[in-house]
Amino acid sequence: MLKATITVTLKPDVLDPQGKAIETTLHGLGFSEVGPVRQGKVIHMDLTETNTETARARLDEMCRRLLANTVIEDYAIILDSDAE
Amino acid sequence: MLKATITVTLKPDVLDPQGKAIETTLHGLGFSEVGPVRQGKVIHMDLTETNTETARARLDEMCRRLLANTVIEDYAIILDSDAE
Repeated sequence: MLKATITVTLKPDVLDPQGKAIETTLHGLGFSEVGPVRQGKVIHMDLTETNTETARARLDEMCRRLLANTVIEDYAIILDSDAE
Repeated sequence: MLKATITVTLKPDVLDPQGKAIETTLHGLGFSEVGPVRQGKVIHMDLTETNTETARARLDEMCRRLLANTVIEDYAIILDSDAE
């Protein structure tokens, strides 16, 4: 079994009002060390696939077809093999 | 400067309808190798803080005070020092 983590975030040039709201609120709470904040989504999934190359290709297809809007979003795939 | 990545996900015992919807849709698209899916949020931020221990403690406080609802959500903090 493989465990996959996918993160989907807005591309750097796309405005991120939710990230901006977090930044402003953190400043208001006294966390003045906080710089630019970007918010996105993270998706954890288990895969019955065991070949990491096949899994990566399939995850890439899932991202392009469903999980990310590649016009405005970037995605990253992290694969962990797991003996559980 | 430090770069921090925070992931906030629902605790394992909490129902995750959004994750379930992704799982069902992926199955419908033919990705039958997909097992349980959980969806959460990811927050990327830059910090002017340079001490990793201080930064980690501050990020932990940000999570508890604003970013996560610790009754139903778990959070994880990843710190990358970055020379940029």
